[in-house]
Amino acid sequence: MKNFLIIKKSLFIFIFSLWITIPSVAQTDIDSTKILKYKNISQQIVTSALNERLGYKMLRSLCRIGPRLSGSKNSLIAINWAYNKMQEMGFDSVWKQPVKVPHWERGDVEEAVLNDSAKVHFKKLSILSLGGSVGTTEEGITAKVIEVKTFDELEKRRDEARGKIVFFSRPLDQATVNTFTSYGNAVDQRVYGANEGAKYGAVGMLVRSITTQYDNVPHTGVMIYADSLPKIPAAALGYTDADFLSSALKEDPNLTVSLKLNCKTLPDVQSYNVIGEIKGSEFPDEIILMGGHIDSWDVGEGAHDDGAGCTKAMEVVDLFKRLNITPKRTIRVVLFINEENGGRGGKTYASFADSSNQIHIAAIESDRGAFTPRGFTINSDSTALLEKLESWLPYLQTANIDWIRNGGSGSDISKLKKAKLLFGYIPDCQRYFDFHHSAKDIFNVINPRELELGTSAMTILTYLLSEEGI
Amino acid sequence: MKNFLIIKKSLFIFIFSLWITIPSVAQTDIDSTKILKYKNISQQIVTSALNERLGYKMLRSLCRIGPRLSGSKNSLIAINWAYNKMQEMGFDSVWKQPVKVPHWERGDVEEAVLNDSAKVHFKKLSILSLGGSVGTTEEGITAKVIEVKTFDELEKRRDEARGKIVFFSRPLDQATVNTFTSYGNAVDQRVYGANEGAKYGAVGMLVRSITTQYDNVPHTGVMIYADSLPKIPAAALGYTDADFLSSALKEDPNLTVSLKLNCKTLPDVQSYNVIGEIKGSEFPDEIILMGGHIDSWDVGEGAHDDGAGCTKAMEVVDLFKRLNITPKRTIRVVLFINEENGGRGGKTYASFADSSNQIHIAAIESDRGAFTPRGFTINSDSTALLEKLESWLPYLQTANIDWIRNGGSGSDISKLKKAKLLFGYIPDCQRYFDFHHSAKDIFNVINPRELELGTSAMTILTYLLSEEGI
Repeated sequence: MKNFLIIKKSLFIFIFSLWITIPSVAQTDIDSTKILKYKNISQQIVTSALNERLGYKMLRSLCRIGPRLSGSKNSLIAINWAYNKMQEMGFDSVWKQPVKVPHWERGDVEEAVLNDSAKVHFKKLSILSLGGSVGTTEEGITAKVIEVKTFDELEKRRDEARGKIVFFSRPLDQATVNTFTSYGNAVDQRVYGANEGAKYGAVGMLVRSITTQYDNVPHTGVMIYADSLPKIPAAALGYTDADFLSSALKEDPNLTVSLKLNCKTLPDVQSYNVIGEIKGSEFPDEIILMGGHIDSWDVGEGAHDDGAGCTKAMEVVDLFKRLNITPKRTIRVVLFINEENGGRGGKTYASFADSSNQIHIAAIESDRGAFTPRGFTINSDSTALLEKLESWLPYLQTANIDWIRNGGSGSDISKLKKAKLLFGYIPDCQRYFDFHHSAKDIFNVINPRELELGTSAMTILTYLLSEEGI
Repeated sequence: MKNFLIIKKSLFIFIFSLWITIPSVAQTDIDSTKILKYKNISQQIVTSALNERLGYKMLRSLCRIGPRLSGSKNSLIAINWAYNKMQEMGFDSVWKQPVKVPHWERGDVEEAVLNDSAKVHFKKLSILSLGGSVGTTEEGITAKVIEVKTFDELEKRRDEARGKIVFFSRPLDQATVNTFTSYGNAVDQRVYGANEGAKYGAVGMLVRSITTQYDNVPHTGVMIYADSLPKIPAAALGYTDADFLSSALKEDPNLTVSLKLNCKTLPDVQSYNVIGEIKGSEFPDEIILMGGHIDSWDVGEGAHDDGAGCTKAMEVVDLFKRLNITPKRTIRVVLFINEENGGRGGKTYASFADSSNQIHIAAIESDRGAFTPRGFTINSDSTALLEKLESWLPYLQTANIDWIRNGGSGSDISKLKKAKLLFGYIPDCQRYFDFHHSAKDIFNVINPRELELGTSAMTILTYLLSEEGI
C-alpha cells in the first residue's frame, strides 16, 4: 500500500512535471528561434547597409539639387526627386500631400560693414540674414551698436538701445555635453532677439552664430516677428567676427555698423509633403512612420539637416525590399516640408493622421544629422514599455545603439497626437552644430559609415516594431 | 499584562528599529555625500576640459613638430617637448626612460609606375613604402604583377609568383561595424605579405591600403621580415589605385609595374619613454598609469595616432591640478616610444614596472583616436569587478561613457604582467581608419569637443580609481 502510494505519487510528480515542462521547453524553442531570426536579420541589415550605401548615394543626388528652402524652386525639384525615387524603388504607394508654405527669399544684397567712429577703418563682417527677416531700405541702416548677452541685460539697459543695432553675443555654451541642450539655451537670441530689440527702439539686430565651431562661417535659422512690434532687420554674424565686433566695441563704443539686406517675404506658395509606404501583410492599418524633413536652409546643401534623415528613411524601405523582409505592419516614409521655418508640413500631416482610421503605432524622426548611432528616445516613461524595448537592445546593438531612454522625439512627428509612441533617433551630437544652417552643411562632410549605421539602427527598430507591435 | 507585553513589544521593535536604521541612515549619508561629491567633481572635470581645451592646444603644439617616427630627429624633439611640458605643468617628477629603438628611413625616392604590356600607357601609382621595408636597387624593379586576396590563394597559385610583384588586394571589410576588427582581419597582408611573396620567389610586394576611406591617399604601417627569407621591397598602394591596378590587370595580365624605393634601416638609436607623475597623498605606491605613444608614422602629424592619446593623458593630470583635486593614489603618465614599429617602449617600461615594488593598480591606454567616448574595456571577466565598475557609470556618463565591458586594453600596457587591471579607452571607431597611418592624420581633422570629452572620461575614471582603488 505504502509502495503503491509512493509509485502513484512519483507518477503524479512525473506527469505533473511533464505538464509544466513541455510547454516551457516549446516556448523556449519559439523564443530561441525568434532570437536567432532577429539576430540574423539585424546582422543582414547592417551588412547590407554598410556594403550597399544606398542612402549615401541617394543623399549625394539630393544634395546636388542645392539648398531646398520651403517655397523655393529647388524645394519643388527635391520634392519631385523624392517622389520619383520612391516610385522607382517600388514603394506600394507614393503621394504628395499639399501644404501651403511661407516663401522667404534672401535676395542678393547682404552686407554689414563695421566703421570706427573716426571713419578711418572699415571691416566687412561675415553675415547671413536670418530666415524671415525684413530687408533694409536700399541705402541701408547705419547705427551704433549695443552688445548684450541676454534679454534681461537688454531690459536693464533699455534706455541705451534706441536707434541702435542690438548685438546679441552670448555664445553656445561649449561646456554642455549635449549640444542640442546648449543650442536650445542660446537660440532665443536668434528667434526673438529682433522683437526684444524693437521693444526698446533698436533699428537692427545682429546675433552671434549659434555654433560649436570657432570659425567665421555664419549660421542662419528662423526668427519670428511679433505682430505688435516694428519689424527690424536681423542677421547672424560669423563667430570670429562676433568676437571682433565685441572687442572693437570695447575700444570704440561709438563705432557704427552699416547694414544692407534685401531679403523679403513673398506670398505663401503651394508645396508638399512626400509620402511613400509599403503595406503591412498582417496589420496594414497599423502604421510605423519614419520621418525626416525635405526642406533645408538656403545655404549649403542641407546634407546633415536633414537630407540624411530623408534618405535614411527611404533606404529603410529599400532594406526591407532587398532583404526580402515582408513587414507585418505598414511602413510609411514621410518627408515633411517646412520644418525649418513654419513646421506646416508636420501640422498638415498630423491633422490628416489624427483624423484617419489607421493607427500610427510608432513614429520615428531622424533630424540630428548623419552621425554614429547612440540611442533612441521615446515619449513615454512607462517602465514596462522601456523594459520591453530594452529587451531589443541585443539586436539594436548590432548597429551601435547602446540605450533607449525617455526623451523628446522631433519637431515634425511631435504634432501627432494619436500616435501611440514617438521615437527620436539620437546619434552622436558633438559635431552637428559645426555644420547646422550654414554653408558647411554639404554632402562632402557626411561620413558614409556613420550615415549607414544610422540607417541600420532605424531599420532594425522598424523591423522589430513591425514584427512585435507595441 | 497584555498591555504591558504589547508596550514591551513595541518598545523592543522601536529600539530594534533604531538599531537597524541608525547605522543605515549614517551609511546612506556617507553614500549620498560621496555620490554628490563624485557627481560634482565629474561635472567640474567635463566643464573644465570642454572650456579650457588644454589637451587640444597641446596637441596643436605637438603636431607642429611634424611626424615622429621612432629614431627620427622629430621624435627626439617631441620627447623633449613632452618632458619640458610636463615640468612646466608642475608634475611632481618627470623623467626619460632610455629605450633603444629601430631607425628606419623612408628616403626620397618612392615611385611605382604601371606600364601596359604594349609600353604605350604609363600611370604613376600613389604609394608609400611600408615601415621596415628594404629599398630597391637604384634602377628599381620592373616586373609583372600577380594579384591575390589571401595567403591561401597565393599558396594555391605559387607557381605564378616567381619573379613577379605580388599584389595583395583584399580590402578592409566595410560591413564590419567595429573597424578595429576589420583592420585586424586585413592587416596580415601588410605585415606578412612580403614574406609570403618571398616564399614563392616574388621580387616585390604591393598591398591595398587598409583604410575605411575610398580615396587615393596611401596608408603605411609596419611590416616584418622573416630572417629565413629574402627581403623584398614592399609598399602600400592608394585605395583607388589598387582598384585601378586590379582592373588594369584583368584587361592586360602582362602589364608591369616599375618600383623604386630608397628606404632603409639604419642602426638602432637611443630614444626614451617620457614619464611624469603626481604623487598619491594616501597610497603613493599604488600607481594608476595612463598611456599613449609619442611616436607616430612618418607621414601626417600623428594627430589621432597617437598624439591625442599623449596630450589627453597629460591634461588628465592638469585637470587634477587645476581643480585642486589631490589624488589618493599616484597618477603616472607614460608616453611610450616605438609603439608603431617594435613596441620597445612598452617592453622597457613593463620590465621596469614588473620589477618595481610599486603596484600598478590600473593602467589605461588611449590609442584609438580623438573621437567621442563610448566605453571602457577591461582585461577581466569578473562579474563582481564589472559590477563595481558599472556602479561608476552615473559619473562616467557625464562624459558620454555608456558601458564597461570585457575586452583588450592596448598594445603598450598589455605588456604589464603585474598590473592589477588594464583598461582600454574606446571612442567611436567609425572614422579612425580614414586617417590612420596616412598624410591625412593631421591636427586639422581633430574635433576639440570629441577630444576633450575623451580626456574627461579618462579623468573621471582616474579620479574614481584614485579614490576607491580596485
